[in-house]
Amino acid sequence: MSELVEYMQSLGERAKQAARVIANADTGAKNKALETIANEIETQQSTILEANQLDMEAGKQNGLDAALLDRLELNEERVAGMVEGLRQIVALPDPVGEINQINSRPSGIKVGQMRVPLGVIGIIYESRPNVTVDAAALCLKSGNASILRGGSEAKNSNQAIANCISAGLKAAGLPEEIVQVVETTDRNAVGELIRMESFVDVIIPRGGKGLIERITKEARVPVIKHLHGVCHVYIDDEADKEMAKSIAFNAKTQRYGTCNTMETLLVSEGIAKDVLPELAKMYEAEDVELRGCEKTCQILPNCLEAVAEDWDEEYLAPILSIRVVDDMDSAMDHIHQHSSGHTESIVTSDYSKAMRFLREVDSSSVMVNASTRFADGFEYGLGGEIGISTNKLHARGPVGLVGLTTQKYIVLGEGHIRQ
Amino acid sequence: MSELVEYMQSLGERAKQAARVIANADTGAKNKALETIANEIETQQSTILEANQLDMEAGKQNGLDAALLDRLELNEERVAGMVEGLRQIVALPDPVGEINQINSRPSGIKVGQMRVPLGVIGIIYESRPNVTVDAAALCLKSGNASILRGGSEAKNSNQAIANCISAGLKAAGLPEEIVQVVETTDRNAVGELIRMESFVDVIIPRGGKGLIERITKEARVPVIKHLHGVCHVYIDDEADKEMAKSIAFNAKTQRYGTCNTMETLLVSEGIAKDVLPELAKMYEAEDVELRGCEKTCQILPNCLEAVAEDWDEEYLAPILSIRVVDDMDSAMDHIHQHSSGHTESIVTSDYSKAMRFLREVDSSSVMVNASTRFADGFEYGLGGEIGISTNKLHARGPVGLVGLTTQKYIVLGEGHIRQ
Repeated sequence: MSELVEYMQSLGERAKQAARVIANADTGAKNKALETIANEIETQQSTILEANQLDMEAGKQNGLDAALLDRLELNEERVAGMVEGLRQIVALPDPVGEINQINSRPSGIKVGQMRVPLGVIGIIYESRPNVTVDAAALCLKSGNASILRGGSEAKNSNQAIANCISAGLKAAGLPEEIVQVVETTDRNAVGELIRMESFVDVIIPRGGKGLIERITKEARVPVIKHLHGVCHVYIDDEADKEMAKSIAFNAKTQRYGTCNTMETLLVSEGIAKDVLPELAKMYEAEDVELRGCEKTCQILPNCLEAVAEDWDEEYLAPILSIRVVDDMDSAMDHIHQHSSGHTESIVTSDYSKAMRFLREVDSSSVMVNASTRFADGFEYGLGGEIGISTNKLHARGPVGLVGLTTQKYIVLGEGHIRQ
Repeated sequence: MSELVEYMQSLGERAKQAARVIANADTGAKNKALETIANEIETQQSTILEANQLDMEAGKQNGLDAALLDRLELNEERVAGMVEGLRQIVALPDPVGEINQINSRPSGIKVGQMRVPLGVIGIIYESRPNVTVDAAALCLKSGNASILRGGSEAKNSNQAIANCISAGLKAAGLPEEIVQVVETTDRNAVGELIRMESFVDVIIPRGGKGLIERITKEARVPVIKHLHGVCHVYIDDEADKEMAKSIAFNAKTQRYGTCNTMETLLVSEGIAKDVLPELAKMYEAEDVELRGCEKTCQILPNCLEAVAEDWDEEYLAPILSIRVVDDMDSAMDHIHQHSSGHTESIVTSDYSKAMRFLREVDSSSVMVNASTRFADGFEYGLGGEIGISTNKLHARGPVGLVGLTTQKYIVLGEGHIRQ
């Protein structure tokens, strides 16, 4: 067994033992750990910022691009954000132990379901050091042990944060192995982590599509994944025109780089001439490049012609593809074919169409008369999210504390035997 | 592309198209299809029995063992059981479209979750032809398309049943591709099915541990699996002795071959001398072979000595391993180490121990003062089950109609945009 394998297995074994402890820790102990971690991060702010400075300098020397350096950078404001996030998680209700309903059965037994932690969660992420705190805190509050593997660019920052987490766990009388940060920067550590099915219950990767595809392909442990977001807004011919323009504008321009940003606008032929010209002006004022189908280009002469690939593209940029469709059925066919299953929204005043769209569109979030930008854990009231899942099984859409738990059956008898 | 790959892909494509139709079919249409299938099976009984006769003869010629032939065999009673099962599924509530709660958020949007089908379900099973009807009916009622791959020994029986299913779907105006039976007996069809992640949403294998381990290892599609059942009963020193004996006897002897049968009995040292001798007599009267730890053998001189492997064995036979433990903590340690995560039960009169056992034992079913034999979908009120899952993610324990669905977020707005 290589040294790396031995190291990863020992992390796994320790996490599995720690998982039994944190699964049964009461809410008070978990909250005390989280509060102490928050206090530690406040106290250790200068140490964390110095460690981050080392990472930033190394990153610049290694030629990391500006976007990556921006994600890597910590400053006082970002550290304060981490602390604020921790205190929000303290305030969230503890999902563990919840029993919704207990039913009596004809045999006399009482049957219910109890919410319990998943066990050991492996988080694989790129250069953002704040994920270390966020992920550790959400896993801890939901009663799970975690193994965190951040990008090697952030290793000093992550280690400084990990020290605060250890101190918080210790102060609450909990084993430090509940949160373990992978210390080696060996890239094979990820390959090992995603195959340790005897120690790890689920892998949550956070990062670009390439990382996530590779992990999904190679993992033996189940993966809760968010692949990408090709989100659609469909403007129905029975839409309120002002509302349609406002939602279509917001869904694209409120932020460009997020997964819930609209990438393709579908417009019913019956309303296209009434909304597209003005909408195009609004987009042009924000320098959004428009790529349209043939009918769109007839209405908007300045529009570029879209090519086949445009309908499957997650631009994450001020670019929008626009397609004029016959009706809602054509819109749903387009979505069925091109959507990544993340978020779609219809703008309509028609009750039946709203109900059909909600029912028939098979994405993790389906909306009526609202901007796709609402699809996230905070906006949905989960109080934080570890990611957005485009899986169908287990957790779908924003994954908060409940998504990090599962349910077991409990049976209460009084000497009942099966006849 | 080989002929087999082409064939399987075409099944997949058709299933994916049909999935959109059945996902949106109303409860009436689904029930009409199920009722017509039941009527067809009644009408076609002699054709089905003749087809089964062909399979039985071929099976005998190919030297299948008696247990396999028994599972393969259909008779009037078993056909009546299939029809009865279908009518029970008609009577079950439709889980699709259920919305439990819609919450208002500070932004003004309303957020809820709607229950929706998984999509396309692949079922891989061995020689029991009744699984063809059961699985097809549960998938259909939960709004899913299914691809069924039964054992090649049952091919004539399965085809005769498939004809009845097609007729039922047709009568209800639904596409026949909602339920497809794999017609080739080529063993590579399974390998293809479990890797078609663009067409198949989940694989449910039903069969022996070997089949399930192989499928889990090779699948690219998520698998809802039931690996095996090493179930425990723990008799606490504060147990009612009569109750303890009655539950421990029932959990082992009510049926030997089922996954929820107890395989290891754990007994607290404080009560072992009071319950084991009489319990041993009860087991001996049923010819159950006892294999005990050292302390057990001191109390029961006729007991065989257990070896290390006994603690991990799923006997599925009149054999029981018995271990005397110090207390409940030792019992839970033993369970943590040796359980397959299926079902464990404690017999105790102590409230705190009952609560701790329920909370701390990490299995799909955890019981107090009840026989492990209750762990199944009918006893829990699911009205039928497609299997019992020992997975942690998604469905855990008996999987009924709800386990064949997932939830998507729905957002109701009135022109809301993100600030």
